[in-house]
Amino acid sequence: MNEHAFSTAERAAVYRAIAERRDMRHFCPNSQVAPEVLQRLLQAAHQAPSVGLMQPWRFIRITDNALRTQIAALVEAERQRTAEALGPRKAQFLQLKVEGIRDCAELLVVALCEAREQYIFGRRTLPQMDLASAACAIQNLWLAARAEGLGLGWVSLFEPAELGALLNIPADAEAIAIVCLGPVDAFYAQPMLIEQGWSSAQPLSDLMAENRWPSSKA
Amino acid sequence: MNEHAFSTAERAAVYRAIAERRDMRHFCPNSQVAPEVLQRLLQAAHQAPSVGLMQPWRFIRITDNALRTQIAALVEAERQRTAEALGPRKAQFLQLKVEGIRDCAELLVVALCEAREQYIFGRRTLPQMDLASAACAIQNLWLAARAEGLGLGWVSLFEPAELGALLNIPADAEAIAIVCLGPVDAFYAQPMLIEQGWSSAQPLSDLMAENRWPSSKA
Repeated sequence: MNEHAFSTAERAAVYRAIAERRDMRHFCPNSQVAPEVLQRLLQAAHQAPSVGLMQPWRFIRITDNALRTQIAALVEAERQRTAEALGPRKAQFLQLKVEGIRDCAELLVVALCEAREQYIFGRRTLPQMDLASAACAIQNLWLAARAEGLGLGWVSLFEPAELGALLNIPADAEAIAIVCLGPVDAFYAQPMLIEQGWSSAQPLSDLMAENRWPSSKA
Repeated sequence: MNEHAFSTAERAAVYRAIAERRDMRHFCPNSQVAPEVLQRLLQAAHQAPSVGLMQPWRFIRITDNALRTQIAALVEAERQRTAEALGPRKAQFLQLKVEGIRDCAELLVVALCEAREQYIFGRRTLPQMDLASAACAIQNLWLAARAEGLGLGWVSLFEPAELGALLNIPADAEAIAIVCLGPVDAFYAQPMLIEQGWSSAQPLSDLMAENRWPSSKA
């Protein structure tokens, strides 16, 4: 323990948020998120680290129901294309609930900003660090939402150019997430894809190495 | 408030970790991270969401001091190349401390796993969601470290192919982060790049829009 450590109770709360956060697909219809809660969550996202302090994240709050319906249709089209691409797992995939766009209280689109090429610090060899920063922002939002008792689902089943056209996103910006947010009846006890038998989790020990990539996995 | 919400104190702890987390470059030399703390932090990372449950993150703990020195040299070379690329800001950039590789107690390299093309769920149109998942894992690690009173810095000033060659990373895997972790004398009150006058933060309100990309920014 050191002088900068949080109290035992505070540390437990942070680890609880990390452990109980889930990628949610089931939301309570006709529910709401209080404006001050939404603001807190977005401020939490906005406190994320970003490469060279570029803060590349942009948030588009979808309040137009017609637009929400169009976004749901875009995702449904990609769900069908993904199902085809999955070949033998098509039927199993189609049984999964992969988004809660129509039911969630709040729908957000997260995009990377335009003119990102001007940011060189930390990106000369790894330009994709802009996406990494925006993902950290979404993870902040996710954890804060869990603490507030709200579910969040990051949907990436969409064609960015199609969603960009729908929302007037400039060609050099890029949508990276459709975020479903809102009250849920219950959080999954485990990740939904485990509960539904789509996949199983790998133990951390299998993903660790010391000094060099493990030769058995190379 | 709802039945799934954390207590007021727990919520405050989660928001505290989010607010006080910093991208650290200054570490206490000759310090250590207890093995059980390191394990907790890596388990926190491993509890991150991942697209299609692919869990693409791989962690390489660097315990060989000669290797640490070689990694520091790789980063120094990229620091010089970045300085050149920054043109008029070269001198200002070179005054910044951009990494704590030699001083940090623990040095980790995070990489994306090999054979990622087999994961199609959520990645058919957005293959870069693997990076997004790994970034969420690093953000979990970052927040948990802050709660433990430990600093973390994500260094992206390196050439992935060079680092990959040094650590025997397969060609279809990819290093995305050099993570410096360990005790610090003090956390920056603000992001270091603000304190050092490199950049200023944008207000959240400038990064928000409703329904469509703001026309003034398009």
